[in-house]
Amino acid sequence: MTDTPTPCDLLIEAGFVVPIEPHGVVLDDHAVAVRAGVIVDVLPITAARAKYAAKETVSRPDAVLMPGFVNAHTHNPMTLLRGIADDLPLMTWLQQHIWPAEARVMSPEYVRDGATLAVAEMLRGGTTCCNENYFFPDVQAQTYHKLGFRAMVGLPVIDFPTAWAKSDDEYFERAGEVHDQWRDDAFIGTAFAPHAPYTVSDASFERLRMLSDQLDIPVHCHVHETVQEVEDSLKLHGQRPLARLDRLGVVNDRLIAVHMTQLTDAEIRLCAERGTSVVHCPESNMKLASGFCPVEKLVRSGVNVAIGTDGAASNNDLDMFGETRTAALLAKAVANDAAAFGAADALRAATLGSAHALGWGDRIGSIEVGKQADLALVDLSAIETQPLFHVLSQLVYACGRQQVSDVWIAGRRKLADRVLVEMDIDAIRANARQWRDHIGVQ
Amino acid sequence: MTDTPTPCDLLIEAGFVVPIEPHGVVLDDHAVAVRAGVIVDVLPITAARAKYAAKETVSRPDAVLMPGFVNAHTHNPMTLLRGIADDLPLMTWLQQHIWPAEARVMSPEYVRDGATLAVAEMLRGGTTCCNENYFFPDVQAQTYHKLGFRAMVGLPVIDFPTAWAKSDDEYFERAGEVHDQWRDDAFIGTAFAPHAPYTVSDASFERLRMLSDQLDIPVHCHVHETVQEVEDSLKLHGQRPLARLDRLGVVNDRLIAVHMTQLTDAEIRLCAERGTSVVHCPESNMKLASGFCPVEKLVRSGVNVAIGTDGAASNNDLDMFGETRTAALLAKAVANDAAAFGAADALRAATLGSAHALGWGDRIGSIEVGKQADLALVDLSAIETQPLFHVLSQLVYACGRQQVSDVWIAGRRKLADRVLVEMDIDAIRANARQWRDHIGVQ
Repeated sequence: MTDTPTPCDLLIEAGFVVPIEPHGVVLDDHAVAVRAGVIVDVLPITAARAKYAAKETVSRPDAVLMPGFVNAHTHNPMTLLRGIADDLPLMTWLQQHIWPAEARVMSPEYVRDGATLAVAEMLRGGTTCCNENYFFPDVQAQTYHKLGFRAMVGLPVIDFPTAWAKSDDEYFERAGEVHDQWRDDAFIGTAFAPHAPYTVSDASFERLRMLSDQLDIPVHCHVHETVQEVEDSLKLHGQRPLARLDRLGVVNDRLIAVHMTQLTDAEIRLCAERGTSVVHCPESNMKLASGFCPVEKLVRSGVNVAIGTDGAASNNDLDMFGETRTAALLAKAVANDAAAFGAADALRAATLGSAHALGWGDRIGSIEVGKQADLALVDLSAIETQPLFHVLSQLVYACGRQQVSDVWIAGRRKLADRVLVEMDIDAIRANARQWRDHIGVQ
Repeated sequence: MTDTPTPCDLLIEAGFVVPIEPHGVVLDDHAVAVRAGVIVDVLPITAARAKYAAKETVSRPDAVLMPGFVNAHTHNPMTLLRGIADDLPLMTWLQQHIWPAEARVMSPEYVRDGATLAVAEMLRGGTTCCNENYFFPDVQAQTYHKLGFRAMVGLPVIDFPTAWAKSDDEYFERAGEVHDQWRDDAFIGTAFAPHAPYTVSDASFERLRMLSDQLDIPVHCHVHETVQEVEDSLKLHGQRPLARLDRLGVVNDRLIAVHMTQLTDAEIRLCAERGTSVVHCPESNMKLASGFCPVEKLVRSGVNVAIGTDGAASNNDLDMFGETRTAALLAKAVANDAAAFGAADALRAATLGSAHALGWGDRIGSIEVGKQADLALVDLSAIETQPLFHVLSQLVYACGRQQVSDVWIAGRRKLADRVLVEMDIDAIRANARQWRDHIGVQ
């Protein structure tokens, strides 16, 4: 062979590549070539060395290369409230702890610093994208953009005044401004984020449905989180929340329905028919005693399932390894079937399933030519993941997030050998401690 | 003050000490003094420095000092089968994967090497004692003793021949020999380990009940793991397994009943009255779709609850941080109460509750004067556990086992700054890989 090697920016060689698509596949001794932030090739290492002249080569024979996790439901600024109040009934937790604490701190600075702490935690755990749902989406977008972290920020809509907006009109006005500012950004997307069926009026749902169609953006909403929510809706509207949302035109392929612990078979069929994505947050659902999302039924019915951690005030982490594992374990108990929601299914939900939910299934979530190089290397040489029989099982059932060694977003290295490349971890820690002193122990 | 300082071997100073007893307490800036392997004092750091002249002082202002976890149900040699077969129905898993693999490898060498790998994993995760249930308890005992790891080894009783024994008489004979050999060892205890109600005859249960009384040792048994087990017992014996065990005299304060996912209120009362301990293995129960143990009901009824990981072939790890967290989360969902089985309760179950189950509640499981110095230091300065509002919440809901920095058993350092002091981790990894090649991918 005398062919001239093809130039590329980055060649990552790994003992194993888990592309997610095709489903359940593990490629031994493969490499991924990256140019201008995009995956341009996936091929055996030996072939890659012959074909490419890379500016940088990273070689990890003991590691798995996988797409970065896509955390499909977060309230990242609340990372600054991690563990402020636990083991309490939902209403006590909200009314006596979370809301008073938020009232004291809600500000652009809090949102910026909380999101920054969250990005550091997510990168160290192999997460490269999040679907954010909180106030001050303008500050969130600035923060994620500055840090080079991929995020969809939620444009809040809620029936009462907050630090972000005082009236329905102002919520929509500010939503339009944020959308407009970020519409062409490579890393930042926007979605409408009506808080929940019980805090958003029919009129607002109709208004945001129309706008989401026009702007071609998703609608990110807590739906059927608890029995109480369903019962209250039946009393107030004579309909279950999902039926009400359907009446208002919101149940479609733009809807990112979070939690969904209360679902009839007919509601599952409705989601499948409409192409609605369900975000499963198993640890939050357990911790707040919300109920069990019927994940296996959803998957078997053809509903796209995504995975999210929820906020660190209720979870209490942003650990997608942990969340994916819990999802895989819990689904079996709920389905009463040890074969339910296997390792490959769970890993797919936490990457490509989450990407699809955000409408970004063609850009991220798997290792395929043409997709963004959002990648994580996971070392399996630790004794906690030895011996190694099956890579997918090991990733889901035995691996911890601390085994993530390197992370790239759009081909740019964000974590190198466990070190955050462009973030000052000591400053982030010190800042978190300052916020803790400011907030005070409840 | 001109008092001569009191000599001690070791002084551990920590930002926080979680003694477990008293319940729910966190001591700020405290120290623990150790002499001859025993805790001799728990006091403020300033007072400790004035009072003690220690041969060695370890000072960690960002860390929590807690008792080492007591893993109340393991099959540690099976760590060599970690992830060999997952996402399968129980019987397929057992009959087509686990039993054939075990048949190929069952030997003293396999038991020794598997237990060694397990000890390395347990120490790196802050676990200092396990309740073992597997074949070749003689080899287990030798291995744990050699490694200075505290363990109760199970003396197997099962109605069919295995590599360990061929007949009922041989099981009991070998049990007697192992008990006799280790009866005076400081680190090793023995318990009868009848496999389960469906694999052990009435006669064997009666025989081991009598012997356990005479020898004053526990009975460690899988009980009510699945619905199937209960239904089969009703057909065969006309009684639920626990009722049958009660008829045979086994339900008493020596019984360590593992799993217990199927429990009526009357059965819970029976356990409370008899002083029977229940070992909760939530991740195994979920993964094998066995059912949900009613942990909160058990605790409220006064039953001693312990926590165990089960074997790495079904879990797939020996991570007591993960198991404790899962227990705390799942209990809330099962009880439909976000206030159920709080952080302090879960941490107590995984330490002192497990110690009580083994009959060792007076020796280990808490940081109290006179107890063995089985201790773990856990660093909370990682950004994943910042900000820090409540130490117990952070330990249970946010902390990962990789944050364990140092571990002592009977005052002897086993892990120092994440490094295994007396074990060759590279050799252990290489050995695990050899076993993997020998066993082969299923």
